[in-house]
Amino acid sequence: MRPSGREVGQIRPVVMTRNFTTYAEGSVLVEFGDTKVICTATVEDGVPYFLKGKSQGWITAEYSMLPRATNIRNRREAVNGKQSGRTMEIQRLIARSLRAAVNLDQLSDFTITVDCDVIQADGGTRTASISGASVAMADALNTLAADGKLNANPMKGHVAAVSVGIYKGTPICDLDYLEDSTATTDMNVVMLEDGRMIEVQGTAESEPFSAEELNAMLSLATKGIKDIIVIQKKSLAD
Amino acid sequence: MRPSGREVGQIRPVVMTRNFTTYAEGSVLVEFGDTKVICTATVEDGVPYFLKGKSQGWITAEYSMLPRATNIRNRREAVNGKQSGRTMEIQRLIARSLRAAVNLDQLSDFTITVDCDVIQADGGTRTASISGASVAMADALNTLAADGKLNANPMKGHVAAVSVGIYKGTPICDLDYLEDSTATTDMNVVMLEDGRMIEVQGTAESEPFSAEELNAMLSLATKGIKDIIVIQKKSLAD
Amino acid sequence: MRPSGREVGQIRPVVMTRNFTTYAEGSVLVEFGDTKVICTATVEDGVPYFLKGKSQGWITAEYSMLPRATNIRNRREAVNGKQSGRTMEIQRLIARSLRAAVNLDQLSDFTITVDCDVIQADGGTRTASISGASVAMADALNTLAADGKLNANPMKGHVAAVSVGIYKGTPICDLDYLEDSTATTDMNVVMLEDGRMIEVQGTAESEPFSAEELNAMLSLATKGIKDIIVIQKKSLAD
Amino acid sequence: MRPSGREVGQIRPVVMTRNFTTYAEGSVLVEFGDTKVICTATVEDGVPYFLKGKSQGWITAEYSMLPRATNIRNRREAVNGKQSGRTMEIQRLIARSLRAAVNLDQLSDFTITVDCDVIQADGGTRTASISGASVAMADALNTLAADGKLNANPMKGHVAAVSVGIYKGTPICDLDYLEDSTATTDMNVVMLEDGRMIEVQGTAESEPFSAEELNAMLSLATKGIKDIIVIQKKSLAD
Amino acid sequence: MRPSGREVGQIRPVVMTRNFTTYAEGSVLVEFGDTKVICTATVEDGVPYFLKGKSQGWITAEYSMLPRATNIRNRREAVNGKQSGRTMEIQRLIARSLRAAVNLDQLSDFTITVDCDVIQADGGTRTASISGASVAMADALNTLAADGKLNANPMKGHVAAVSVGIYKGTPICDLDYLEDSTATTDMNVVMLEDGRMIEVQGTAESEPFSAEELNAMLSLATKGIKDIIVIQKKSLAD
Amino acid sequence: MRPSGREVGQIRPVVMTRNFTTYAEGSVLVEFGDTKVICTATVEDGVPYFLKGKSQGWITAEYSMLPRATNIRNRREAVNGKQSGRTMEIQRLIARSLRAAVNLDQLSDFTITVDCDVIQADGGTRTASISGASVAMADALNTLAADGKLNANPMKGHVAAVSVGIYKGTPICDLDYLEDSTATTDMNVVMLEDGRMIEVQGTAESEPFSAEELNAMLSLATKGIKDIIVIQKKSLAD
Repeated sequence: MRPSGREVGQIRPVVMTRNFTTYAEGSVLVEFGDTKVICTATVEDGVPYFLKGKSQGWITAEYSMLPRATNIRNRREAVNGKQSGRTMEIQRLIARSLRAAVNLDQLSDFTITVDCDVIQADGGTRTASISGASVAMADALNTLAADGKLNANPMKGHVAAVSVGIYKGTPICDLDYLEDSTATTDMNVVMLEDGRMIEVQGTAESEPFSAEELNAMLSLATKGIKDIIVIQKKSLAD
Repeated sequence: MRPSGREVGQIRPVVMTRNFTTYAEGSVLVEFGDTKVICTATVEDGVPYFLKGKSQGWITAEYSMLPRATNIRNRREAVNGKQSGRTMEIQRLIARSLRAAVNLDQLSDFTITVDCDVIQADGGTRTASISGASVAMADALNTLAADGKLNANPMKGHVAAVSVGIYKGTPICDLDYLEDSTATTDMNVVMLEDGRMIEVQGTAESEPFSAEELNAMLSLATKGIKDIIVIQKKSLAD
Repeated sequence: MRPSGREVGQIRPVVMTRNFTTYAEGSVLVEFGDTKVICTATVEDGVPYFLKGKSQGWITAEYSMLPRATNIRNRREAVNGKQSGRTMEIQRLIARSLRAAVNLDQLSDFTITVDCDVIQADGGTRTASISGASVAMADALNTLAADGKLNANPMKGHVAAVSVGIYKGTPICDLDYLEDSTATTDMNVVMLEDGRMIEVQGTAESEPFSAEELNAMLSLATKGIKDIIVIQKKSLAD
Repeated sequence: MRPSGREVGQIRPVVMTRNFTTYAEGSVLVEFGDTKVICTATVEDGVPYFLKGKSQGWITAEYSMLPRATNIRNRREAVNGKQSGRTMEIQRLIARSLRAAVNLDQLSDFTITVDCDVIQADGGTRTASISGASVAMADALNTLAADGKLNANPMKGHVAAVSVGIYKGTPICDLDYLEDSTATTDMNVVMLEDGRMIEVQGTAESEPFSAEELNAMLSLATKGIKDIIVIQKKSLAD
Repeated sequence: MRPSGREVGQIRPVVMTRNFTTYAEGSVLVEFGDTKVICTATVEDGVPYFLKGKSQGWITAEYSMLPRATNIRNRREAVNGKQSGRTMEIQRLIARSLRAAVNLDQLSDFTITVDCDVIQADGGTRTASISGASVAMADALNTLAADGKLNANPMKGHVAAVSVGIYKGTPICDLDYLEDSTATTDMNVVMLEDGRMIEVQGTAESEPFSAEELNAMLSLATKGIKDIIVIQKKSLAD
Repeated sequence: MRPSGREVGQIRPVVMTRNFTTYAEGSVLVEFGDTKVICTATVEDGVPYFLKGKSQGWITAEYSMLPRATNIRNRREAVNGKQSGRTMEIQRLIARSLRAAVNLDQLSDFTITVDCDVIQADGGTRTASISGASVAMADALNTLAADGKLNANPMKGHVAAVSVGIYKGTPICDLDYLEDSTATTDMNVVMLEDGRMIEVQGTAESEPFSAEELNAMLSLATKGIKDIIVIQKKSLAD
């Protein structure tokens, strides 16, 4: 039924290439099929002004797409002079997801900035970004812990994200661009390893969805995320 | 248990004042307790360039807070020279919600712009905005239909939104600022009159949430939204 | 002669609603007929860098119109990414007027920011803003004095503003939009209670004006402002 | 009494150098003592969109100061990324003044843009700008008339501007920086040759002013402007 | 003598990976040692307004670095709201170099935009960008020719660029970051296959340079560029 | 052969008017024929943050053209809200050239900002700017030395710039606009008094250039710059 021939609950081949670039404290090229994102985690001393004296660290994120990551060239945001609403929304989602996966009060006064730069987009760039960013962040945090700058890695567990949606009336997992552009509902789910949710964002594109459909999508997402976390763990173990 | 003494599923007093200002095709002052938002719907001929020749109308939204809508004065976005990420995210949510509630192909080539300007904020400004905006939009669409510019009001039904969350371990409905600032999970739900969902956005603020908690929150939201839709209908019937 | 049937020197019904919103130190909804402006005064500790160490306070103002305050929707300035020249000019006028009405050296090192947000515009928004802003500011200053943070309210007296102009050859007071759009001269006058002027801005829209006409307009303004100050006093006495 | 030894009603030496630069249709270096402004008038075909089909021309103005026109270097506005409120206010005043001096319906569909770039500032830059700009504009209009592109020069007469103010209790004319920085009232007056006013902007800097003081300042302005117009005429006759 | 152990005239290992991403008409990952740049060429119909009706095509370029391409994270230009002067200067150089290598009047009315996004920077990002961009552009032009949209590939020949400089008193070729940061002179040279120059930009960083030194650097550049063109040809032949 | 009748190596009449404006520490009106630039040097205490504690001063530059410096009016950059790429590139060149001519470690912790504002443009504005700016800077530095704020003027010698190019197949020096617009190669050269180079920027506009042509242009530039330095010295000796 799916253009790619995948099963409804089957995610695309996911590849995590750690140490993709050399300077960042964590650097991962994450691929969800033809969607490819460079995720780098940068550690800096100090926290934003609104956290001064609160004994906690901070995690933030930025998201961008190369102009020709897509079929049509998009204008570069630096040329436009501002980030689009879509970019803003996505990078806020990534940042919230990462923060929710970390005990910020165990992060000393470090700020971690995760940059997610999409070099090729075939749907699901935000969920690929979160899934790759959490590995880059894990690398950065493990190094801080190994260097004695933190007592331990403050992550609450592995965290990953996947998109689910209703395509031709059927709930499916990890939509590619072709599926995404005709799905009636699109939902992004971010979960911890233990199955608890960090973010759920469901949007009816053309047709409202029922509580049953929501739960069917959540089930698919739970399974898909488990599959991604297996790959994250394997990658981190290498 | 709630600071306001409300029941867990009880929404705040909701007031809809139609024709609050005189020029807009729809103009509603919506109050959810101490949260007050002016929602105006403007009808304009023509659609954005990306819809030219597609035989459908368009609905968009903008959101803003007066600088002193809150306890502390916030810098005016026009002075900053850009809208914040939070503003972008909220106005995109409002616009998607309204579009999902309308058959755009029955909207001829009109564009409706709904402005939601918060004059006082006590939590839940985005859900109050959606709930008020849909009444302002209904007024504008009814007038278009009455004037013979549309065959009928193209709305799929009444649409409203409410926030739910987990406060001190308990799911509650329609959080005010005090509750919102300590809730561990915050979720915004947009529904049609028939109980189907248009948008669901759940965020773990400090503690991940389970599928059970998600469904408990959804139940509260379903009831709260039904209550709001009763008030919308009554307001439109006056 | 006037479209509204008013006498040449007659101002529109003026209503001042104090405590219109709850958080600001001063909050007034001012109405000059169909022109409605929310004026809030915010008190903050500290002064701008150019006043450091000069033993005086500061007063500033910002002005904005909701996009649909007028018959046609105007683009939101935060979306444009900058304030228009008209907005800049008006908010500078409001701020100068308020500063000239206060002994800044008796204001300790407080900064008062007055926000004037027009929710409905039918001519004279800048003079309504000044007249309402001075009441909001008075409330904020009275509270500072009552709280012992200032020795006394440092205002030099009540201050108000009105527009005058030459309409169909005749000087008139407090122009509404219909009158304003065809007047040959438009003048804004800001006065203290004692009849002395703080600002005079006269502009020939199509026909230059003589010293006689200027003085005839000033006489009307003097009377109109006296009427407004009576209403201000009454409002503050409630 | 004045630091410069001038009489109260005496303007500074005014010099108008026409054809100061070679490309513009009108180009004047105007000097009011140490205040020096390059005023160029550019003629372009066509009018702004809001005048399309209205059978009239348009006149607009832009104002700027070189960063080191003053004692302290000011940041360049192009670097700041926006024009200041002061710049906006001044260029709007210049443009209104020039438009009020011209019968726009006799200007065909030309747009004239007058650039006033201050290369040295010693007070009164806006009134010097208007006085020089009107000569640059006259040159441009005379050329259009001589070239047969207009039936006649559509100016209503010579137009000039001067500042007046109350300095140490005494009304004086054409304030230099030293006087301006301690004056209690500052007023800018724009007049036609026949003594009628185009703009009057009086501001109480520290002390409100009375109607008598206003009229005393207007008398000084009337005389000062007459003196400037003599110099404009002489310059245009060369 | 060089930190890397290279000969004075020896370039770093250069790798050109064509078809690095899938959507662009030309897409090359170029590596000069640890400097890595994604170059994509996008073909679009139509030319900028200033070329309308001139019977020629256009080539333009944009340049950016991922925030963590370097040892320290740089702020993202889209967040700053503008491109830096350095970025502007580099992308103008890239664009001029590519245009000079093509007969624009044989490019019909196509516009080619080449995006150079640096994912890792170790010196020489602008010369690597030009060298990779010309291969991406060649791919795009060859496809246009193969598709019959152009009569032939309008390139004047292969074009490449290299940096040269004076390091510890000795001219060297293709400086890495370590060398670049202490070189007294830095020069970028862009050449055609036939040894003729398209751009030469030499800058004395701390010590002026003589005509002899300039010519010594040019000789090294000529040889280095020949080596790079061999690699370009081989890559295009694959 | 040249439209102006000049010899191939002959520069235009160069005039340096020192103390052109009164406030700046150095102020020069430089004229290269019809190209006229106001160059002012401003001395300020302190250095940019990236030089704190490095025991050296700093020199920077800004460049701008009045809107009507050219035959056609260009939009004002402050209105556009940003400086163009061309402006950025030119002011970076000016700043680098001036810095290379000064021993920054003998400049204490002063910052010198040189503003180059083109009031009339007939080709070669960047080289005229550099040549004039170095005289303005010399004045500022001589004053600092005379006032005992520096031990000596830290300039390495006189510095000047000239454009050279290939016009109708022949290398020529100091191109005016007519020549520049048809030249096949354009090169800007900045040199010290001793003939050593500070900057060389050669660009093939339509035809690549050979090493021989480069050297022919350099010879012309060397002579032209010597001529300009004679005029600089004479001007500084007055």
